[in-house]
Amino acid sequence: MKKFFILLLMIGVVTALAACSPNTSDTQGDEGEELTIEKQGSFSAGGVVVETPGTYESQKFDNWKPYPEGQTYHGDHASVFYQIPEKARDFPMVFLHGAGQSARTWQTTPDGRDGFQNIFLKRGFSTYLIDQPRRGQAGRSTVESQITPVADEQMWFEIWRMGRWPEYSKNVQFPQDEKSLEQFFQWMTPDTGSFDANLVSDATAKVFDESGKGILVTHSQGGLPGWMAAAQTDKVAAVASYEPGNYLFPENEVPESLPSRTGALQGISVPMDEFKKLTEIPIVIYFGDYIPEANEISDDLGAENWRVRLELGRQFVETVNKYGGDATLVELPKIGVHGNTHFMFAEQNNVELADLLSDWMKEKGLDKRGQ
Amino acid sequence: MKKFFILLLMIGVVTALAACSPNTSDTQGDEGEELTIEKQGSFSAGGVVVETPGTYESQKFDNWKPYPEGQTYHGDHASVFYQIPEKARDFPMVFLHGAGQSARTWQTTPDGRDGFQNIFLKRGFSTYLIDQPRRGQAGRSTVESQITPVADEQMWFEIWRMGRWPEYSKNVQFPQDEKSLEQFFQWMTPDTGSFDANLVSDATAKVFDESGKGILVTHSQGGLPGWMAAAQTDKVAAVASYEPGNYLFPENEVPESLPSRTGALQGISVPMDEFKKLTEIPIVIYFGDYIPEANEISDDLGAENWRVRLELGRQFVETVNKYGGDATLVELPKIGVHGNTHFMFAEQNNVELADLLSDWMKEKGLDKRGQ
Repeated sequence: MKKFFILLLMIGVVTALAACSPNTSDTQGDEGEELTIEKQGSFSAGGVVVETPGTYESQKFDNWKPYPEGQTYHGDHASVFYQIPEKARDFPMVFLHGAGQSARTWQTTPDGRDGFQNIFLKRGFSTYLIDQPRRGQAGRSTVESQITPVADEQMWFEIWRMGRWPEYSKNVQFPQDEKSLEQFFQWMTPDTGSFDANLVSDATAKVFDESGKGILVTHSQGGLPGWMAAAQTDKVAAVASYEPGNYLFPENEVPESLPSRTGALQGISVPMDEFKKLTEIPIVIYFGDYIPEANEISDDLGAENWRVRLELGRQFVETVNKYGGDATLVELPKIGVHGNTHFMFAEQNNVELADLLSDWMKEKGLDKRGQ
Repeated sequence: MKKFFILLLMIGVVTALAACSPNTSDTQGDEGEELTIEKQGSFSAGGVVVETPGTYESQKFDNWKPYPEGQTYHGDHASVFYQIPEKARDFPMVFLHGAGQSARTWQTTPDGRDGFQNIFLKRGFSTYLIDQPRRGQAGRSTVESQITPVADEQMWFEIWRMGRWPEYSKNVQFPQDEKSLEQFFQWMTPDTGSFDANLVSDATAKVFDESGKGILVTHSQGGLPGWMAAAQTDKVAAVASYEPGNYLFPENEVPESLPSRTGALQGISVPMDEFKKLTEIPIVIYFGDYIPEANEISDDLGAENWRVRLELGRQFVETVNKYGGDATLVELPKIGVHGNTHFMFAEQNNVELADLLSDWMKEKGLDKRGQ
């Protein structure tokens, strides 16, 4: 293990709560108003039961030494916190976080305003927030893992396009005060077992057995298992994905690997009948600012990491639509929305981001009530 | 790592959500009714910033290989999900889970009914649910840890007094259907670093900086850091503790170690001025059923583990009250409440348990509004 120099600076609690939701020009939502919840709670979805061979001896005990023989272990499930507002719209929204994150991604913003959970609850959608298998409150992993604290926050600051440490990107929508950055870094939580897209997609699909048919909202690393879940169950009515890390393509149509400083990117091959599922539902993908065009190779880690994912996203959308699908890729700066990083849904203009999603859901008939 | 025999049984999603809150004879609450939330969200409290010596090189990259030099790492904070209902009572309730658990402990019941989070929100209390440092969504630990899946659920079933596997205790209040047990086991989530009561108490005290003066509700392993937090900040107005694992005593007054099959139990010594803080606030402790008297040594793991913790609790209450405090220990079977295990607040009679706590809070003037 790396030895750390522990700063004695104890982190004071942030005044995040004191920051109220600003008055915005949002015409669709009701931010700042009260929220009436008909039902809320927690459940697990997916997962496996592992049983160690042998016979369990009731009341055996040896000073807390493990004696797994004949005992069971429930693991690799997702943990879900759900809220159903009064007069909920027909389709719930199911949220799947990205790498190093948990449901917290959606529960607030770095500066303590309403996150997408609150915004869409207030707009009448039931929300289901996932902690994926082997992450956060779903930490019981069936595989062994080493948790090693390695200081990495400046790297993520750059990979996520907040800027070139310690400078923020020009006109960035990420709040630039110290406390917001501190709260944001504290959202991170490690994997308690290796990331497994199949496990995540399986558990995500099973969340829809509980929520009913609905809209899947994914971010980053959650993008790929999100597409897989949508190809796996008819209960995913639509997918909205914020800067997905990767994409599915039909066998023999996977584009050539895209080289980048942060690693070559190649799409994932699935049988055509699975891919076709993605052509039967509306799909929208959002990418933020500070991403160069496909051929503009850069030294910048954030630019490099997302340049190829954006480009592969274009090819994914093209392929989905070629087979009769309804996929849209929104490059925010090209529609006049500037300054967004990889965490656009939690930035200063997140109500504007929510409005874009609301408009799209309305256009696709996903926001109906009482159908 | 132990090799496991993986049962191919994939766990279906439980019909927990379908189970509605039953009509109860509760006269204080409004279970089953809607809940109006004025504000909700997430924040972190406590923790440290670790900085690796060296100089950070912006835009350096080597195929995702860590390069911690000059980078920071925020860890060992608590993660908190809070909800403030309309017309909230003056004192919020802050909930701290036990070993192997997270905020999920309070968010539902194994059979999918309202947990203490919902019950007390509906009774007008703001709720703050903690994931303690190095657990759940607060997984960024500053110390290294090995996560090893070891099948242990039958042992916990017995330690927590649900019964002698596979038989449930007679008249137990824990729901006895298979799906409830499965959901309950899925609440467990591992430590991502060694348990450190000082870290937990420090973060818990800092949660009150955010919530304001309020009532701390602890369970099991959370009991000890709960007493420590109450001794550390004036913002803990009262403590309600469900089967705490250990207790504080004044220097030179720590009782003799209590031997037990599950390990000898000894109280923790603190300076008298710290202990005195616990004499300035109302305290209530609840213990459930199936716990023998102090001198009734047993073969039963659950009986043994809690017999000594109950007995030390009696001595703690006596000591607090000797110094002018207001501590009460409630042994549920002795007031006619039978069948409760270690997870009493999530069992079939959890509304009755909540009523007991409500009555106590009312008696102590902790449920006022607009003071």
